[in-house]
Amino acid sequence: MNAKVSLTRKAVVLLSGGLDSATVLAMARQQGYACHALSVDYGQRHRVELEAAVRVARALGAVEQKTVRIDLAAFGGSALTDDSIAVPTQGVQKDGIPVTYVPARNTIMLALALAWAEVLEAQDLFFGANAVDYSGYPDCRPEYMRAFERMANLATKAAVEGHRLILHTPIIAMSKAVIIGEGLNLGVDYSLTVSCYQADAKARACGVCDACRLRRAGFEAAGVPDPTRYVPRRA
Amino acid sequence: MNAKVSLTRKAVVLLSGGLDSATVLAMARQQGYACHALSVDYGQRHRVELEAAVRVARALGAVEQKTVRIDLAAFGGSALTDDSIAVPTQGVQKDGIPVTYVPARNTIMLALALAWAEVLEAQDLFFGANAVDYSGYPDCRPEYMRAFERMANLATKAAVEGHRLILHTPIIAMSKAVIIGEGLNLGVDYSLTVSCYQADAKARACGVCDACRLRRAGFEAAGVPDPTRYVPRRA
Repeated sequence: MNAKVSLTRKAVVLLSGGLDSATVLAMARQQGYACHALSVDYGQRHRVELEAAVRVARALGAVEQKTVRIDLAAFGGSALTDDSIAVPTQGVQKDGIPVTYVPARNTIMLALALAWAEVLEAQDLFFGANAVDYSGYPDCRPEYMRAFERMANLATKAAVEGHRLILHTPIIAMSKAVIIGEGLNLGVDYSLTVSCYQADAKARACGVCDACRLRRAGFEAAGVPDPTRYVPRRA
Repeated sequence: MNAKVSLTRKAVVLLSGGLDSATVLAMARQQGYACHALSVDYGQRHRVELEAAVRVARALGAVEQKTVRIDLAAFGGSALTDDSIAVPTQGVQKDGIPVTYVPARNTIMLALALAWAEVLEAQDLFFGANAVDYSGYPDCRPEYMRAFERMANLATKAAVEGHRLILHTPIIAMSKAVIIGEGLNLGVDYSLTVSCYQADAKARACGVCDACRLRRAGFEAAGVPDPTRYVPRRA
């Protein structure tokens, strides 16, 4: 049996409702943390993801789940928040930064997680960033995570008082197939999760956006059935 | 005459509607920046400050002003957002971190400014943090600002493409009296600004909270009349 930290040790876990963050929540629970799941409604198109976050938090035994709303669409600049920019469906972009990148999104979400952690007196943040599949996103890289953690340890009352904050990014270097394998071992029900950038109101995935392609390829590579419900394609 | 940067050089200026950030906006304008003023409605008690921000932005020639709403009160933990914690009125606390500290507030506000800067393709952020009057706030210290800037330069598409972001904190080491002197030289009308943590609906200051005490002492030390409108005190 693994050594587990005390159940009174609290963690804030960023939970989008997608595959990656669900896996990270399961990992944090497995390590014995009392998990406070934070979802951020930043005006994203894929709002059914937020409904998925509520279901995933419950299924994986989070202590509580909060959704904080912030209107990043006011700034524009991303296909995920700006209706005038189309979500690409022609295959995963190989070079450069995708139009689905949301400016400073991870910095904002981590800042909110930091605020909640300070109020909860939690010293652990869990974040499902991935530098493999999302290699085009600057704020998914390990060097960014280290710089955020360093800044966070200068930012808060808790840090000033010597309670060091740790930013855990357990899947940052894992392939999608490995993430899925880890999650299945921990009992994650991926049919509850939504990854699609433009899922319909019934939480059915489009099957053609970058997020769908990465997810489907992950299940194929893991050699397990894909439980995702897809929108029926027209003939 | 000062060398000025081109007017096409954009800056995002965090503008609370208080004395400090109004002065910083005037400084950024004086340096020739086209200023995009960002105010953050984080559920603070002193909401008239946000109305002041709109007036100050107009008076000081900002290109535009946006107010972004985010519900930090959902987390609680500060006298400024949590109705169950009273704003202190018995004089400025000498030691430790005041209850008016809002967890991770500056990190969240700077993250939002970073997002807007990226969309605008601005490389300059101006922030009226002050490490003298607010020495108890960890996220007002110069070492925190440097860590945020470093993180920001790893976070964004612009930074990855080589456009370095600069976080300007021109008043961080100034006393309130010096800030007021600088602002008056630049034509700031301080009667438009609201600093009070619990101003009334007519934007009249309480005169007894920490922010009022620091502000009033600043005008006294600067040797200039205090234009603040105070709530009449009961006999």
